[in-house]
Amino acid sequence: MKIDALTVAKALEKLRRRRPLVHSITNFVVMNTTANALLAIGASPVMAHAEEELEEMIEIADAVVINIGTLDRHWISSMEKAAGIAGELGKPLVLDPVGAGATSLRTGTALKLLESGNVSVLRGNFGEISALLGEHGRTRGVDSMVYERDAAKRLALRAAEEFGLVAAVTGATDYVSDGKRIYAVENGTPMLGRVTGTGCMVTAVTGAFAAVEEPLNAAVSALAVFGIAAEKAHEDAEYPGSFHVRLYDWLYRIDGELIRKMARVRKVEP
Amino acid sequence: MKIDALTVAKALEKLRRRRPLVHSITNFVVMNTTANALLAIGASPVMAHAEEELEEMIEIADAVVINIGTLDRHWISSMEKAAGIAGELGKPLVLDPVGAGATSLRTGTALKLLESGNVSVLRGNFGEISALLGEHGRTRGVDSMVYERDAAKRLALRAAEEFGLVAAVTGATDYVSDGKRIYAVENGTPMLGRVTGTGCMVTAVTGAFAAVEEPLNAAVSALAVFGIAAEKAHEDAEYPGSFHVRLYDWLYRIDGELIRKMARVRKVEP
Amino acid sequence: MKIDALTVAKALEKLRRRRPLVHSITNFVVMNTTANALLAIGASPVMAHAEEELEEMIEIADAVVINIGTLDRHWISSMEKAAGIAGELGKPLVLDPVGAGATSLRTGTALKLLESGNVSVLRGNFGEISALLGEHGRTRGVDSMVYERDAAKRLALRAAEEFGLVAAVTGATDYVSDGKRIYAVENGTPMLGRVTGTGCMVTAVTGAFAAVEEPLNAAVSALAVFGIAAEKAHEDAEYPGSFHVRLYDWLYRIDGELIRKMARVRKVEP
Repeated sequence: MKIDALTVAKALEKLRRRRPLVHSITNFVVMNTTANALLAIGASPVMAHAEEELEEMIEIADAVVINIGTLDRHWISSMEKAAGIAGELGKPLVLDPVGAGATSLRTGTALKLLESGNVSVLRGNFGEISALLGEHGRTRGVDSMVYERDAAKRLALRAAEEFGLVAAVTGATDYVSDGKRIYAVENGTPMLGRVTGTGCMVTAVTGAFAAVEEPLNAAVSALAVFGIAAEKAHEDAEYPGSFHVRLYDWLYRIDGELIRKMARVRKVEP
Repeated sequence: MKIDALTVAKALEKLRRRRPLVHSITNFVVMNTTANALLAIGASPVMAHAEEELEEMIEIADAVVINIGTLDRHWISSMEKAAGIAGELGKPLVLDPVGAGATSLRTGTALKLLESGNVSVLRGNFGEISALLGEHGRTRGVDSMVYERDAAKRLALRAAEEFGLVAAVTGATDYVSDGKRIYAVENGTPMLGRVTGTGCMVTAVTGAFAAVEEPLNAAVSALAVFGIAAEKAHEDAEYPGSFHVRLYDWLYRIDGELIRKMARVRKVEP
Repeated sequence: MKIDALTVAKALEKLRRRRPLVHSITNFVVMNTTANALLAIGASPVMAHAEEELEEMIEIADAVVINIGTLDRHWISSMEKAAGIAGELGKPLVLDPVGAGATSLRTGTALKLLESGNVSVLRGNFGEISALLGEHGRTRGVDSMVYERDAAKRLALRAAEEFGLVAAVTGATDYVSDGKRIYAVENGTPMLGRVTGTGCMVTAVTGAFAAVEEPLNAAVSALAVFGIAAEKAHEDAEYPGSFHVRLYDWLYRIDGELIRKMARVRKVEP
């Protein structure tokens, strides 16, 4: 099946019909904003990290999102347990390795979660995914904007092969691969870099799509839908505070017609 | 005393004159937004969870709010200690049992806090309050919208009787009971369901009112004031990001005249 | 060198050119909003509190901000370790003693961090800084508005002398001193008191300026720039929700021309 504007529009329609419950163990900075992104797009968020309640919570969830943006040993332990439960219960698991490469704790935690074999989609920027493949030294914090188009495409493919999952390397152009196919998504706006946690939001939204579609389709759909919403928000508002508000508005407003008109999704050769 | 638009308007006036300090132990997702709701309405928020400082903080607070939305054993221990201190110092205590029924950790924690005998107002949705009364199996996450008008009314009454407090069961119509009287509040908008933590915000605002009025009046006033602010916000903004922003604007702008014009508060028969 | 509108404009230009990475260990309430303030002004935020990663993170950071707004023993331990590392690595360290005076845990933690000798800038309100100098009993929560103009000026000077750093006592007029010189900054709007964490935001922004200028200049520049942005935001929006959004817009939009026109910075006699 080819992924294109039409399949993205259908995925969104399905998401809104099913209203998936997305369980997140995420970082303190973005808990509120990722929950609002999920509600705006039409999913239902729940956050819980106590090990005692993970099994019950994941049992009722339709997808699990783990984001390592603010770690400590208790949260790492919860994340590892949640990854295990997601695997046992067959729930799609999306991982955001925030800051991998910046510290060995982050790189190591992300790698351990990947080694569980339960991650369905890995979503990170160029520096983070490179670090997980051992290809770079250190990224500069969590806002790495190092970017080369071809390198990103190859990186998505290698990460998908290496970890046996769908890898999304996001940047000016996003590349998504399942290890065989590669898709490029060119929606979005640089203004996303002026609001904290927009990468974490797209990861959360990927979780919502992963609850209703297979991982490659889910990752491409999430990036296209989020990117289009961001473009529309930026049309309405040229500064970051107002842009941020409009981003939720457009996650709520985006529909099939807008997707068919604006989606820049294409299959690319490896 | 009958509670009506006029008493609600007076309660708000008193709240703004006294500017109560509301101490919260709440969940990570809504710490910022509940603090902003309190500031907008005219109260003063403080958050502290370290057991070492709870006594000093609650001593200077005018009300305490406990919200179990993101638990772990350290936070549960703080909440239990805070409930005990609120009781000893005679401070009004408002409890939001977020996600009760979704996991046994949440149901059990909420019940233990209720058993302290120190909770003045319990504010939850139908699924959460049902779970605390052992009447339902499991709710679907924290966004349960299961709703029946008569059942909700009876539930508020039973919860009030069972736990010896004021119970507010919120939904399309909110029902508030002290075990004898029941009030219905019909302000609000479904758009509140598209912004995370609006239930937690109304709980926080209930804490502010509980600092200046007796619990039944406080709960009804908070629900009416918050619901009216939400209706006005929705008049101004039809999408969730913009609606969220306007909600704070209207919590700040709402006054006696607007309350007298818009409050839909009525006493109902059990 | 005299600090005035021109030096403030130059400091902002330098900040935007260098895009400093500001590492924060801050409170749960303001993690999102302080990160957004840093991004809007042109800096790059990173949050990390795990002791295992502090050294690596601070090594790549250009400044460190510690804010004690929500403490517990694990976070206190991280903060102490971070202060030590900042000292060893020669990174500017900005401290916000949120709620000092409200509880002995907060006063004690702030004092211990000050005693490390590594704090470059201390930014607090009148009640907080007084408490650290042992001059007041207890403040009323974190929103202390107790204010006397002369007392604030003397307090900034004494705190700077006592702790050997730059002290900024913020209020209707902000006073900043390095123990010899004192500057008054009169930008801002009372509406800042209706949004949670605006004090924490200005502390974070002080961290960004401290990465590119010496501490006295950094503190004055941050207060002037933030205050001007707030004034412009209040011109655009008269209610707190909308004001909050516009505050980020104006942190992004503010430029040298606006600073030269609006900055109210003056040197005052001790």
